[in-house]
This record gives sequence, C-alpha cells and structure tokens, in this order.
Amino acid sequence: MAPAIDPDRLWRRLMALAEIGAIPGGGVDRQALTPGEIAAWRRVIGWGGEAGLEPATDAAGNLFLTLPGRDRAAAPVLVGSHLDTQPTGGRFDGAAGVLAALEAATVLAQAGERPARDVSVVAWMNEEGSRFAPGMMGSEVFCGARSLDAIRAVRDAEGISVGEDLDRLLAAFPDLPRRPFGSAGAYLELHIEQGPLLEAAACPVGIVTGIQGKKTYVVRLSGAEGHAGTLPMAERRDAVAAFARCASALDRAVGGIDPAVKFTIGRVQVAPNAPSVVAGEVRFSIDLRHPDNAVLAAAGARIAPLCTREAAPCEAAVTPLVDAPSNGFDPALQARIGQAARDLGIRAMPILSAAGHDARHLAGLCPSAMIFIPCRDGISHAPAEWTEPADLAAGAAVLGRVLADLAFADTLPLAASDGAAR
Amino acid sequence: MAPAIDPDRLWRRLMALAEIGAIPGGGVDRQALTPGEIAAWRRVIGWGGEAGLEPATDAAGNLFLTLPGRDRAAAPVLVGSHLDTQPTGGRFDGAAGVLAALEAATVLAQAGERPARDVSVVAWMNEEGSRFAPGMMGSEVFCGARSLDAIRAVRDAEGISVGEDLDRLLAAFPDLPRRPFGSAGAYLELHIEQGPLLEAAACPVGIVTGIQGKKTYVVRLSGAEGHAGTLPMAERRDAVAAFARCASALDRAVGGIDPAVKFTIGRVQVAPNAPSVVAGEVRFSIDLRHPDNAVLAAAGARIAPLCTREAAPCEAAVTPLVDAPSNGFDPALQARIGQAARDLGIRAMPILSAAGHDARHLAGLCPSAMIFIPCRDGISHAPAEWTEPADLAAGAAVLGRVLADLAFADTLPLAASDGAAR
Repeated sequence: MAPAIDPDRLWRRLMALAEIGAIPGGGVDRQALTPGEIAAWRRVIGWGGEAGLEPATDAAGNLFLTLPGRDRAAAPVLVGSHLDTQPTGGRFDGAAGVLAALEAATVLAQAGERPARDVSVVAWMNEEGSRFAPGMMGSEVFCGARSLDAIRAVRDAEGISVGEDLDRLLAAFPDLPRRPFGSAGAYLELHIEQGPLLEAAACPVGIVTGIQGKKTYVVRLSGAEGHAGTLPMAERRDAVAAFARCASALDRAVGGIDPAVKFTIGRVQVAPNAPSVVAGEVRFSIDLRHPDNAVLAAAGARIAPLCTREAAPCEAAVTPLVDAPSNGFDPALQARIGQAARDLGIRAMPILSAAGHDARHLAGLCPSAMIFIPCRDGISHAPAEWTEPADLAAGAAVLGRVLADLAFADTLPLAASDGAAR
Repeated sequence: MAPAIDPDRLWRRLMALAEIGAIPGGGVDRQALTPGEIAAWRRVIGWGGEAGLEPATDAAGNLFLTLPGRDRAAAPVLVGSHLDTQPTGGRFDGAAGVLAALEAATVLAQAGERPARDVSVVAWMNEEGSRFAPGMMGSEVFCGARSLDAIRAVRDAEGISVGEDLDRLLAAFPDLPRRPFGSAGAYLELHIEQGPLLEAAACPVGIVTGIQGKKTYVVRLSGAEGHAGTLPMAERRDAVAAFARCASALDRAVGGIDPAVKFTIGRVQVAPNAPSVVAGEVRFSIDLRHPDNAVLAAAGARIAPLCTREAAPCEAAVTPLVDAPSNGFDPALQARIGQAARDLGIRAMPILSAAGHDARHLAGLCPSAMIFIPCRDGISHAPAEWTEPADLAAGAAVLGRVLADLAFADTLPLAASDGAAR
C-alpha cells in the first residue's frame, strides 16, 4: 500500500515553479539550458533534499533525485518528465509530471521503508525542442538513440550550441555526481493530455496505450526566378506553382490515406517572396503522424515520388528529419495503472498519445508507461494551459501507487499478470 | 543633329553606380528610400553638376536634373527611369535608363546651344514596389494618378511608412528646390527589355508600342490554428492546404485562360509558420498581366469566386491593388525613334512591353515613348541581369537623338507626321 500523496503541497510547488520564467497570461517561458532552467533545477533539488532525495546529473544534462533502495546495484525505477517549456508555454506541460513524481517519491521517503531498488525522479533535458531542435535530447542520449556529440553540436537561432550551454548548466552544479546513461528498470511519466478527450469524457486519468508514430521532412523545390510580367507561362519553373501542386497532391494522397493520419504543412518559405518575381525556391515542412507504423511508413513512402512528379519542371529534394515509430507502452504497467485507479476509486480510460514524449525513448530501454491528466479545451503550448487541481491530484495519486508497486516489487519487469492480479 | 554620346563614360558610370548596394553575383540591392538610394542620388547629382544640370526634387521624392531651356516656363521634356532595385536586383533595370538620360542631357549641355525648353533627367521614386507595394509611386503621384497622402501611408514589412523614409530622404538634401507635380511636355524612357525578344532577333533597339495591362491583388485565407499531432484532418481549417487548392486552381483557370496571360503568385506569408502547427492564416499576392484589356478583365473576374470556392472551409478575402489597363505609346514619338535609329544605322523593331514602367503613367499626362535594349537570356530582377555595352550604347545614341529633337522642337507635342518626315 502506497502512502497517500499531499495534493496541496504538489499544487503549491507547481505554482511556485511556474514563477520561474513566468510570462503574461499565466504562461511560462523556460526553454532548455537557459538560466530559467538552472533556477528550476535549484528549486527542485531543494525540495528533493527536504525528503532526503540525492541529486545527480549525467553528461546530457538530465537531472535525477534519488531515493536509495536496498539493492543500489539494481536498475532503478525512473519517474518524471521535463522542466523546459515552449517560448510561450504553460505551467503544466512537463512540470506537472516532474513534481507529481517528486511528490510520489517524497511520500515514499517519508514513509521510511527502504524500497527494493533506487527510485529516481528525473527531469529530461530539452524535451520541447523549441530552442534546440529536435527535442527529447536528454532521453534520446540516455537511451542510446542519439550520441552525446550529435546533440552537443546542435545550435539555437543565435548560434549557441547545446554543448556550450550544457557545460554552463553542469558548471552551475559542480558538486552533483554524474550518473551513467542507460540504467533503468522501469519508467513512469505523468503528463497533461494536450488534447480534448479526457476532458470530454470527464475522466481524470488516461492510461496511455502508446504514442503515435511521427515522421517529419523538409522539402526544397528549386525552380528559376523570373519577371512576373515578361516570362511566358510555358517557360516558367515557378516554385510557388510547384508548391501548390505538391501540397494539393500530398494533402489528398498522404493526408487522405487513412482517417487517423495527421498530415500538416505548417511552414512555407518562399524566395525571394516578392509579388512581381516568379519564385525560384520554396522550402516547406511536413509533419506526418499515425498510430500504426505500417500506415505511417506507407504514407511516408508516397512523399518523395509525389513531390518529384508534381514539382516538375522544378526539382524536389525531400530530406527526412524525425523518424519516430509509434510505440505501445508496457501492457503490465498499463494494467497496473488501471488497477491503481480502481483501488483509489478514480475513473480511468485508455488513450493514445498524439504528441511525442520522452517515454517514447524509454520504452525502447525498459518497461514504460504514461498517465495522462486532462487539460482544459485541449490547449497546451500556450499560457492558457490549465489542469484542475483535483485532476492533478487524481493522476498523482495513481502515479504514486504504481511507483510504490515498482519500488517494492521483488523483481522487474513486472509480469503481465501482476497488474490484473492485484 | 544631336551631339554624339560618350558610351564609355555611360558604361563606367553605370558600373560605378552598381557598387552602391552591390550584392554577390554582380547584383544590386538598392530598394526605394533606403540609405543606398540616398547614396545613389548623391552620385547622380554630382555627375549632373559636372555638366551644369540643376538638381531638384518634389514632394514625392522624384529627382530631377535640369538643363535649362530658353523658355523656362514651357513644359519640360522629361527623360529618365528609376534608381531603386529589387532586393536581389541587377545593375541595369532602371539605372541604365537614368544614366543614358544623364548622358544624353550631358552632351546636349556640353554642346552649348540652349534648348527651346527645359530638359530634365528624372529618377522616379519607388518604381519596383518591392519594399513598399505597389510600385511606381513617384510617377503616379507626379501624374495625379494617386495622392501623396495615399503613398505616404504605405508601410514596409517592418512597419516603416513611405512618409517617414521620404521625409528622411528629403532631409538629406535640404538645399534642393521643390518642383510642382504634373509639368511635362514629353517623356522618354530607355529600359532593358526584361524579356528575350530583342536578343533572339539580334536587334539592339526596341520601339515600345505599349505596355500590357496589369492587375494585382492580395488574398487573405483565414482558417484556424491547431496542433499538428492531435487535430483530426476532418476538423481542420488549414490555411496552407486552402492556399494549395486556391493556387493550383488559379494557375489552371487564370494562368491558362490565354497563351499571352502572365499569372504569378510571388509572395506567400503563412502564420504562425511553425512546422508543428496547423496554419491559421495565409496571405498571398497575385500579379496578372495581359496586353488585351478584355482578356485581362475576364481573367481577373475569375479570381475571387475561385478563391472562395477552393478555400472552403477557410474564408478568402480578395483585395484588388493595382488595376492598370494596357496602354499604347505616342505614335509620333515611336516614329521619331524609328527615324533616329535609321539615321544612326541601328536596327530597331517594334515590341510590346510585358512589364510595367513609369512611362505607363506619364503616357496619360504627355506624349511618351520607351526604348528597349536587350538583356541576356531575358533575365532581370536578378544579379545575373546583363546588357552588352554595345547594345546600351546603341539605345543611348537613339535616345540622345530623340531627346535633341524634343529639346529643340518649336512646339510640343510633335505632330504625328514629324517622325516619319525627318
């Protein structure tokens, strides 16, 4: 039986954390590896210290606060999320998950019984990817999906590299021990849904079945500049006209491949972008998502041939960026979350995550699961982001109970039947 | 008999002027009312001063360099073009016409015989319209086609108004006298063709018969922002997808209405223009041209209904900007240009201007004509813009001869028979 969390302490800390990087309208601007994130670390390390949690970091700038277990050599249970935000982000995305994990670990520590293995609250470095793209850098490196050198070389819009600001972050905490990458026996993450489904169902807890797959691309269409008044239509290689053909065809053939697909061209850059000049170049982004990897792959495979065909007489160069397959979360952990909710008398429903999360990478390393809580009107990445205190309390209570299960289990991973059997 | 121009001096000055705002590849970025244009004014005023030409301006920022005539109250002969360029423009578009005019006026001045009336070299303000759209502002206001207040209110992409930068330009030349608008007895303009016809015919001089008609529009497509990963396709009001449908349909239905039509979408602006956000708004430009006003009107009439239909479920708002019917140039002046070319042993051919020029507006005010010279591969509005020195020399020689005819004619306008009779 897990000790009960303190929902008021959790809410107070969440609102206090939101003061670091606060922006008008109740929002937060606390981007990765900024002084704001350093300040957030100090605050969270301090709260962890009150409960005896031991702070540590790693070479990728992930933060760990550990409740020591009996077997310190066993792979730890990790539980957390991220502390960074979008430039016009909210108070809940990321921070709610880290502080719910801290609350759950705090009450475990205060209960006094030493867990079977280490329990580490974690805050992953640069989940959002708004300053340094793409995001989820800390969890990717921790899980071996990307090299430390590769992320250190990424630069923000002002030319500052991840490496430079990562060194600055680590130098601000010279006494923190460094943990190795890759050690995890299980992973739990609580996060706001960033969609409307839980709110619509009046259900405070979502048992996340998986994360839909995502592929992103940049397409460059190369034509030839010309004078809008003199160049005959038949002689043009107009990159905007080529874009219109490509985008229309992609919207039908890729966006229409299946009702569950999400196909978005969100960014379009035209050069020279002058009213009286036939455009010589267009660059545009593609964001493609689907829960089924086979459909995602089939949709993605249509992009380059279709661009090449529709762009002519312009040339199309399609560069893949992100290729994140869909993943399903551990069935035993999903069952355990459902059981915990039933035990606590809290409604829960299965839900697919449309957005990406650090748990995507952890799921390749160890049994992993996510708990979603509702957010008002499905709004996130905006100051208006809001979760009811009662919903956060419900989600954190379920998280705390599953964390206790994992902390005290004789062995990890849990057997598939363990969840249903309890 | 006109004094012979100095083609080497003309070429040297043209290349020297191109150093002001030079960009890689031999191009020029000297947009309207920028410090670059102020520097170009100083250079041109200095060269005019060497020949005794008197500088002046007007409230619309047009520059005049005047060789005084015997009757200073008579309407002057104007000859010129513009000094501003596209952001990635070339060395010849505009500047060739101003400096050929300066060369022709210089040799008239050096010949010593005072002309019957003032001869004013002119550089019109903001012909290109790339920074402040639409262009030809200076000639429009001079000719009464648009009010000074209307152009002063136009703002560039950074929010700076024509009025602010016009005041800055005029403040940089506090000693220049101000001329009234609208006084012109005749107008001549030399310009690169910006098309391939003269080069293909190996003909150094084009006698411009007229300018094709032009309509421009701005279209705003309004949808709704959304999360690229969560918003179902069926619920989207994606402004980029709407743009693709509109642009494809316009390209077919408007761009394909007639072989001589020119249809261009050169500028596209997406908001918020982020890869993971379904776009809420797209604004785009339309540039439509045709030599036949009836076809132009029919093509233009298709735009709004088609945008409304294709944009759904987004909303389309189509705002007309420029509506310039096609015009023909003065027959007597066209004949005089042909006669001058014959007198000089230079091949010349009639040609229609596909591009708009300040002469379009002058033609409504006084007898006007244009001389085209070839440009390599028809390229303009690009650093690769190029005219052979021999072709510029030929065009300028013809310009000089016709200018002398106008400067010393007993009365203006010339009679229609004057040209053929000489």
